[in-house]
Amino acid sequence: MNFLQQLDNISKKNNSFLCIGLDVDLEKIPNRFLSSSDSISNFNKMIVDATKNFVCAYKPNSAFYEMYGIYGLKSLLKTIEYIPNTIPVILDSKRGDISHSSSAYAKSIFEVFKADATTVNPLMGHDSIKPFTDYKDKGVFLLCLTSNPGSLDFQKKSTGNKKLYEEIAEKAVKWNQHGNIGLVAGATNPKELKKIREIAGNIPILIPGVGAQKGELGSSVKFGTSKNKDRFLINASRSIIYSSNPARSAKLLRDQINSYL
Amino acid sequence: MNFLQQLDNISKKNNSFLCIGLDVDLEKIPNRFLSSSDSISNFNKMIVDATKNFVCAYKPNSAFYEMYGIYGLKSLLKTIEYIPNTIPVILDSKRGDISHSSSAYAKSIFEVFKADATTVNPLMGHDSIKPFTDYKDKGVFLLCLTSNPGSLDFQKKSTGNKKLYEEIAEKAVKWNQHGNIGLVAGATNPKELKKIREIAGNIPILIPGVGAQKGELGSSVKFGTSKNKDRFLINASRSIIYSSNPARSAKLLRDQINSYL
Repeated sequence: MNFLQQLDNISKKNNSFLCIGLDVDLEKIPNRFLSSSDSISNFNKMIVDATKNFVCAYKPNSAFYEMYGIYGLKSLLKTIEYIPNTIPVILDSKRGDISHSSSAYAKSIFEVFKADATTVNPLMGHDSIKPFTDYKDKGVFLLCLTSNPGSLDFQKKSTGNKKLYEEIAEKAVKWNQHGNIGLVAGATNPKELKKIREIAGNIPILIPGVGAQKGELGSSVKFGTSKNKDRFLINASRSIIYSSNPARSAKLLRDQINSYL
Repeated sequence: MNFLQQLDNISKKNNSFLCIGLDVDLEKIPNRFLSSSDSISNFNKMIVDATKNFVCAYKPNSAFYEMYGIYGLKSLLKTIEYIPNTIPVILDSKRGDISHSSSAYAKSIFEVFKADATTVNPLMGHDSIKPFTDYKDKGVFLLCLTSNPGSLDFQKKSTGNKKLYEEIAEKAVKWNQHGNIGLVAGATNPKELKKIREIAGNIPILIPGVGAQKGELGSSVKFGTSKNKDRFLINASRSIIYSSNPARSAKLLRDQINSYL
């Protein structure tokens, strides 16, 4: 089964467009996990057990595992292994390099860590992306318009009568030969998200920034969804995994998302 | 000592602007290394021993270590630990994320792997870069104009009367409060390299693409160097480390570079 089928199936089964970001932080993990030598993966297993009926994907961000060195990366391997096969894992790595090096990154993400999808930084262009999309069963989300203040510096630059993020969205559609490309567009830019969906047609859009970054949920759902009312993923990380009741927080956000559809 | 002092010192001592890319590949490493359980780091140690008097820096690319999972990353740690403190290590990682996540990447690169410098993908703008440059003693090379064909897709897009890579170079200069920013500009674009040096003033430029990628060495040296005939690094990876005599290949390329100065 390819990533898109996997995503569509679980979205239907769990009636969910919620993606949970597994961004670990040993300073925020509850004390009861810290005594174990497997603190990070045990915490993640608790989150997965609590939320697996309310999500359409999990998204660990590599940064928070690399920060803990070899120990962190072993925890990432264990976490991905634990997540049920029916729920896709998007390893948020934002990689991208010349093709020879991108091939090595793709091998790491899809073969070593066995993720179902990843995020890619498209700045280096088509040959930096192809080694990822060549894994036809895997999903590849290109950064299009990110949720942070720095998106103004380059992504929103005008390139003639378009903005750079529109150029990226257009290329994503053009390069989508295997039907496995998606886009990342932050919830903090609802007007631009509308444009991106118009360009992107039916491809999946991963929308971070609704939780700690305070992006607007209603317009993210309205503008992010495809014509068929699917193919979007609202990501929340810290606001769910560090809440006092992750299951309740996940169910609540899933239902809020659905209420805007 | 900060990165720039370290670079200037070793460039003088070794009379060198050659950076060697430690891009390991178990399929290319000589057979005699493969019997060991430390193949990768032992191969790298041999390369370092053979070339350390001819270089101004080493540049391992993360991708080729991540490809081998935990084993690869342990080899990367050992390799960086082995390189003499007088020679800066640029961990070529091309990371970049929202500030919270970039901080985690910076921690990994500078504190866990103990690199002296890194490469950063600037697409996400100032707040994605600041967590790296906040390590004032470390070097941070922003991708400006890469050596691959895909640099045409976005980096060479016109943004009014400039190109995107020129915007990146200008921002690099503007954001260089701690004096620790550098740029990456491929040897395959000599005309553009000249423009980038004009904008960049005296900041270091890392120039990949002269070896396997066939960029032009003479114009890379001519246009890449600063007014003081320093602050540039010509990177070669595969063409040196997999040659039959890495010491001879490194010395030869170092001397060729110097002959164009």
